[in-house]
Amino acid sequence: MPNASPPSFAPGSVALVGAGPGDADLLTLRAIKRLQEADVVLYDDLAGEDFMSFLKPEAELVAVGKRAGHPSPRQDEVSRLLVAYARRGKRVVRLKAGDPTVFARSDEELRAARGAGIAIEIVPGVTTATAAAAAIGASLTKRGVARRVQLVTGHDVDGRLPGDLDIAALADPAATTCVYMGKATFPALVERLIAHGMSPATPAAIVESLGSPETAIRRGTIAEIAAVLTTDRPHGACMIVYGLALAGS
Amino acid sequence: MPNASPPSFAPGSVALVGAGPGDADLLTLRAIKRLQEADVVLYDDLAGEDFMSFLKPEAELVAVGKRAGHPSPRQDEVSRLLVAYARRGKRVVRLKAGDPTVFARSDEELRAARGAGIAIEIVPGVTTATAAAAAIGASLTKRGVARRVQLVTGHDVDGRLPGDLDIAALADPAATTCVYMGKATFPALVERLIAHGMSPATPAAIVESLGSPETAIRRGTIAEIAAVLTTDRPHGACMIVYGLALAGS
Repeated sequence: MPNASPPSFAPGSVALVGAGPGDADLLTLRAIKRLQEADVVLYDDLAGEDFMSFLKPEAELVAVGKRAGHPSPRQDEVSRLLVAYARRGKRVVRLKAGDPTVFARSDEELRAARGAGIAIEIVPGVTTATAAAAAIGASLTKRGVARRVQLVTGHDVDGRLPGDLDIAALADPAATTCVYMGKATFPALVERLIAHGMSPATPAAIVESLGSPETAIRRGTIAEIAAVLTTDRPHGACMIVYGLALAGS
Repeated sequence: MPNASPPSFAPGSVALVGAGPGDADLLTLRAIKRLQEADVVLYDDLAGEDFMSFLKPEAELVAVGKRAGHPSPRQDEVSRLLVAYARRGKRVVRLKAGDPTVFARSDEELRAARGAGIAIEIVPGVTTATAAAAAIGASLTKRGVARRVQLVTGHDVDGRLPGDLDIAALADPAATTCVYMGKATFPALVERLIAHGMSPATPAAIVESLGSPETAIRRGTIAEIAAVLTTDRPHGACMIVYGLALAGS
């Protein structure tokens, strides 16, 4: 097999950098190095602002405004900006909450850069699902109980529950399911899970505002978490986890 | 919701620390801080040895010998050691490749520590699946193509393909499946996927020795990757990824 040499961060190239769940101390050393080298940083609100201390004073900061619970109408514009800055010879960091390969629309940015002949690398980060598990203090896998972990998104382009969900896969109590951006649609999902035969007593947890001093955790059953979200929807971004892995942990 | 205050690393406590995929620069700042504070570090071979430069000179190092492709018969012993060191007032780091909540048997260590009344925290890390995606240069999710990511293990306690696999979930081409520790059993899995109706031409990639200078990537179809693994099994640890998200990226 050919070796995959680690790409360097040359002028005129792009790095899609995972910022992790928000705490500045959950950045990786490689992410920090890219931030230190960056001429331009395009960032989402979700990525927090603790990373700014790592930047060169003259680095240009561009907020591209992706926020929890909002669709991101400007994806084409973000891709266009990445290419435009790289073409001007800048080292461009596209900073993303969590990991760039999980519900971060990196595919569109990878395609735009490659289509324009611009080198682009991915710097992985701590994805929100495992950071939420750490905050809860539970393993997502559990021998003999939960042998599959699945990451899904709670909303479609239009903010509704995706229409093509594989409910059988999602209703499997021996999987641990992590729902990104699901606070608006989780009650509808739980209705469908229960209709498919999943026990309403399946253990669940919701982690709000992960990676900030306001982090809040609530545990209960899927039915209880759905009820909470119906009557008292949290303001912050939420990660919802459910499955038998959470029992007794 | 109650606040979840970040736990500190007190003497007599345990930190399950994710080392990420192996590259020292994919450690997080929090992981490095725990390593710097540690009195004792229990580590697997899989976690590499680059982390040692962060330790206090007097820190005690205990190799617990979890290796790719081998079962880990000493899990009870590892849990026993964690508790014993903590009871002696040590700050104990249990360093794990990837993220501690994904196929790392942390559940058993969490239970052992809590059963003994010992404080234990989880420091999340970059999990091998997203690090592999970064190495491949592909997003695991792709709007309208791959809306579910699933992490599974290729071997059971006895090293064989787990008997209770949810083949329907695994044969869904609109999911991106990441198989941990699957190099021995992937050919058997692919047989079952194809028998369940998955196209043998489903795109796949295998990343060998991720996080080391020997990292090697091979792309192909699930049938081709299975054939490679049958005739020419790689020596290093492997992450296998398959699904339509890999098409054209």
